[in-house]
Amino acid sequence: MKTLRLAELQSPLELHGRSVEELVDLCAQLRSALIEKVQKSGGHLGSGLGVVELTVALHARFDFRRDRLVFDVGHQCYPHKMLTGRYSRFETLRQTGGLSGFCNRAESGYDLLTAGHAGTAVSFALGIAEGLRAGVPAATPPPWTVALVGDAGLGAGVAFEGLSEAAERRPRLIVVLNDNEWSIARSVGALARYLSRIRTSRTMQRAYERLSDLAARMPVVGGRLKEFGEVIRHVLVPGHIFEELGVNYVGPLDGHDLGQVLDALERVQRIEGVSLLHFLTEKGHGYAPAASDPQRAHGIAPPKLPSPADRVRSGAGKRSWTKVFSDEMLQLGREDARVVAITAAMPDGTGLAEFAQQFPGRFYDTGITEQHAVAFAGGLATAGMRPVAAVYSTFLQRGYDQVFQEVALQRESVILALDRAGLVGQDGPTHNGLFDLAYLRALPGVVLASPRDAVDLGRMLRAALRRGGPWALRWPRANAVECLGAPDELRPELVPGTAERLREGGHGAVLALGAVVENAVQAAELLAQAGLELEVWDLRFCRPLDLGALAGVARRHAWIATVEEHALQGGFGSAVAEALADLGLRPRLSRHGVPDRFIEHASSREEQLEACGLAPEQLAAAWSAAIQDAAEPARAS
Amino acid sequence: MKTLRLAELQSPLELHGRSVEELVDLCAQLRSALIEKVQKSGGHLGSGLGVVELTVALHARFDFRRDRLVFDVGHQCYPHKMLTGRYSRFETLRQTGGLSGFCNRAESGYDLLTAGHAGTAVSFALGIAEGLRAGVPAATPPPWTVALVGDAGLGAGVAFEGLSEAAERRPRLIVVLNDNEWSIARSVGALARYLSRIRTSRTMQRAYERLSDLAARMPVVGGRLKEFGEVIRHVLVPGHIFEELGVNYVGPLDGHDLGQVLDALERVQRIEGVSLLHFLTEKGHGYAPAASDPQRAHGIAPPKLPSPADRVRSGAGKRSWTKVFSDEMLQLGREDARVVAITAAMPDGTGLAEFAQQFPGRFYDTGITEQHAVAFAGGLATAGMRPVAAVYSTFLQRGYDQVFQEVALQRESVILALDRAGLVGQDGPTHNGLFDLAYLRALPGVVLASPRDAVDLGRMLRAALRRGGPWALRWPRANAVECLGAPDELRPELVPGTAERLREGGHGAVLALGAVVENAVQAAELLAQAGLELEVWDLRFCRPLDLGALAGVARRHAWIATVEEHALQGGFGSAVAEALADLGLRPRLSRHGVPDRFIEHASSREEQLEACGLAPEQLAAAWSAAIQDAAEPARAS
Repeated sequence: MKTLRLAELQSPLELHGRSVEELVDLCAQLRSALIEKVQKSGGHLGSGLGVVELTVALHARFDFRRDRLVFDVGHQCYPHKMLTGRYSRFETLRQTGGLSGFCNRAESGYDLLTAGHAGTAVSFALGIAEGLRAGVPAATPPPWTVALVGDAGLGAGVAFEGLSEAAERRPRLIVVLNDNEWSIARSVGALARYLSRIRTSRTMQRAYERLSDLAARMPVVGGRLKEFGEVIRHVLVPGHIFEELGVNYVGPLDGHDLGQVLDALERVQRIEGVSLLHFLTEKGHGYAPAASDPQRAHGIAPPKLPSPADRVRSGAGKRSWTKVFSDEMLQLGREDARVVAITAAMPDGTGLAEFAQQFPGRFYDTGITEQHAVAFAGGLATAGMRPVAAVYSTFLQRGYDQVFQEVALQRESVILALDRAGLVGQDGPTHNGLFDLAYLRALPGVVLASPRDAVDLGRMLRAALRRGGPWALRWPRANAVECLGAPDELRPELVPGTAERLREGGHGAVLALGAVVENAVQAAELLAQAGLELEVWDLRFCRPLDLGALAGVARRHAWIATVEEHALQGGFGSAVAEALADLGLRPRLSRHGVPDRFIEHASSREEQLEACGLAPEQLAAAWSAAIQDAAEPARAS
Repeated sequence: MKTLRLAELQSPLELHGRSVEELVDLCAQLRSALIEKVQKSGGHLGSGLGVVELTVALHARFDFRRDRLVFDVGHQCYPHKMLTGRYSRFETLRQTGGLSGFCNRAESGYDLLTAGHAGTAVSFALGIAEGLRAGVPAATPPPWTVALVGDAGLGAGVAFEGLSEAAERRPRLIVVLNDNEWSIARSVGALARYLSRIRTSRTMQRAYERLSDLAARMPVVGGRLKEFGEVIRHVLVPGHIFEELGVNYVGPLDGHDLGQVLDALERVQRIEGVSLLHFLTEKGHGYAPAASDPQRAHGIAPPKLPSPADRVRSGAGKRSWTKVFSDEMLQLGREDARVVAITAAMPDGTGLAEFAQQFPGRFYDTGITEQHAVAFAGGLATAGMRPVAAVYSTFLQRGYDQVFQEVALQRESVILALDRAGLVGQDGPTHNGLFDLAYLRALPGVVLASPRDAVDLGRMLRAALRRGGPWALRWPRANAVECLGAPDELRPELVPGTAERLREGGHGAVLALGAVVENAVQAAELLAQAGLELEVWDLRFCRPLDLGALAGVARRHAWIATVEEHALQGGFGSAVAEALADLGLRPRLSRHGVPDRFIEHASSREEQLEACGLAPEQLAAAWSAAIQDAAEPARAS
């Protein structure tokens, strides 16, 4: 066989039949390539560096044309991509038209699950394993299914559910636990502490192995060896939750010792039932800056930016929406002792890191457990606290049922602060937050608001605290306008269901919500240069809608447009269409938002907005045409 | 103190300071009252009978004006209701205007969580406990918070998440595990098996206690007693998952031995950190018919009906929607070996019990784990199977994120069969399925269909299997019309996005979806008697909508009505309003559906439909008025 050269690899099958030394060399090539390329392209470097050996070993010991490999949230999939025909395209990572930052079915037959939400790989892989079993005659062993899961993902409730059923079903399933002690922030929760107890007992583990050997040779004990072994193990090594659940537990093993990893993957194929292989790895292994600050190295943006909360764009002096929220929370924390903050493993991404530092006793990082985080918030509110749960819009989907039951149905004063509500640029469809208005708007009593600028973000948080009840606020992954329109003291009070007029005009009206109010205003200004004057409203609340304002607008104008950074199905424009119908008013209505498809990753949110026709110039062009159209008589009625 | 008489109880505080004998007598009274009253009113008898002693002991050992009691899914709350001032109203249980079948905040200050979805009590109670801790000075012990959870609820991922964080936080929280070996069907999954291992080792447990006593008196062992105890315990009693997670585990104890329960509740108040008390109980304890058939006794309908799948209404010879689905699944199981069925703890309620019997190897009951169930279905589909996941509409909210990621984003051929999609009568707001169209309609590529009759239910299942991709079908908790309109062979093919015209007429058009198409047709027939002829369409698909039909209708008619059994926000009528706006068509639009509030329980679905104005006579009256209105000129444009 010719030498393994990463750059020339045609197929992961070339890893088969190689010596440990050859594969170790390939690992070194992979590591260099990752460091070099991700520093150029940006992306998740630390996670990839941590699983170089695991990935090489998996491809060396399985044939994933026949066997199946499911990555849990794909931050760790870069080495896998390089080994499966995508090395040469790596410079395009997370760029428009380029490689996705996650596993992606459209890219490769080796990617089985396009995933960015953690914890589901065990369930999905179990489904595959059961399906493969059904596809072969009873006595034939089906192909293997392997799920690669991080320690933080394993703390998600769905992973517990999946593992629980896997143990029961006993298909040909191997769960590879990549335990790097970090999720995105540091892992939290009892499972994390439990894993850490396992880790610290590795010396004990070795002692146990020696003791067992010894015991086997003692005549009295020998006969009851298994029982004896279990007893010793329980004393020396923390009890094994996974074995209690019925899963074979193997570990902990050094995930960077390729020989050991290869051996373990071989041995585990001889064990009946479901096995969990516990590998200890280091995020950023082999790259000093990443290993010493794993949280910073989790996501690398090109070029490097000053602070995580500010790393959205390089707009000099501009604050990201995340940073605005972060600043407001510090203020609110000082003003109101009832305010507590909750994040599900995203203290940095949601802007709560500083709050956590200043008010450690009033901050909860629940780990990747959105269900629990939301229900927990409901309980805190019941006891008189004023919880603010900051969650990415797309991740709140996982806590939807708890928003329904533990918050909305109880009418509890919980504030949901939805970051990444809109298009997110490089992360793509798993991270776009395009459905929150649709799924929250159906729930009675939930106030849905979205600020157009930094001023209103603070005002909305305060209004939510003052008025109580369930509120959800949303903002995108972008920099915020500090002040658009009147200064704070001149704005109308933020009573739910009251809009604000930003501009007058007689040629039509535009109703917008959230950050894209800016786009609407800019579009109106462009048209004003051409002599078309539009009335522009910031609706501020998607629920309740300002029906009075809406009725007035619809009576004054024959044509209305809506603008939102959300799916057109069921979102803000949908709410306006409903309200107009219910009011019995029938202006022409042009709805602008995100069309009915998953929006792939792109180099920036701006490009995606453009792809959806939401750039100011595009809106202006569309409106100019619509206004001319509206001048003609209605087609029906 | 005067004798404890259940009928005369003013407050649960009267249980304080009573002897065990007095409380045992109260338990007997409670049990008789439950059997007598629930047999009259209908409701969940078995669960209540199982927790009589636990409930009495909790109220005897805590003061829940100060301490807090959170019931997980409230099937078990009847004894609690009787002890907290609602005994005299028990005849009204689950009737219109009467007591709710679950805990309900509106009924009593002793009900903290209005809940019908299982597994969240630990998280909610943890929130309360943390809030209470924040409300007292640092050195003062806050009040106790107690969560009462069933063994099946504890298998839900969110419960694992909650327990995991509770162990970390160590507030004054007690989790009382009511383990009756049954969820609604028999408990499944590794946790259930694990609990059963604990149960079968009770004899061993006693042996362990004696051994420990003995060991304490032995000089060599005495000093290392704790370690010794743990070792023995691990051998004799299955390892304690809960203790591994950091929760104090006490049990298993006999939940019907009141003295033991009272003692345990006293003792646990002296333990630091979070404790889990594991009580073994018997569903239906003290009532022979319920204890011998717990599944049948789970829900009792007044009067008793022949078979569970048919227990919706007594319409002689009529099949419930559940039964129609059940029959179709048997047929499909025979026709297509790829068809597998999944339920999350509802084999009976969703109509899969017979499929499970006939095709045991192709049936999965995952327990109360909707997240896992949906992700698992995605995996099965990936491996070439054609999974049908049957879930109550409201419970699918818990699997929403998996519908998004593991099904829609992967474009997998999963069929979601949503039962109880609509108003459900006696169970109330936690069980109404009123949001599924809103939350699913936003997801690209998901086909949403709803049959108007039994014929179309089968046709839709077959169309979904034939065409592939993600489909969701919905039907309510009601009896189905067998055939409404043309017979099977004369119906247009079920291509997604094709509607069917059921009636012609020139005075306006009605677009309906699902079971309430019948209401629309009946309303149109009523109006026909008055000389008003309406065109009536069964849209069949809420997504994609039949835009061609819609455009035609809107061009022919100045007035259109929509009818749906779903929240008006974001549902079918909303989709029609959107589509008309996008088509540039502007007929008057009257939307009929469920208004924007939580709909309380009522004696029947029919009463709730009436409360929403969806009865045929109500629709006819509304349309008659709207048609006259539409004859006037449009107000805008």
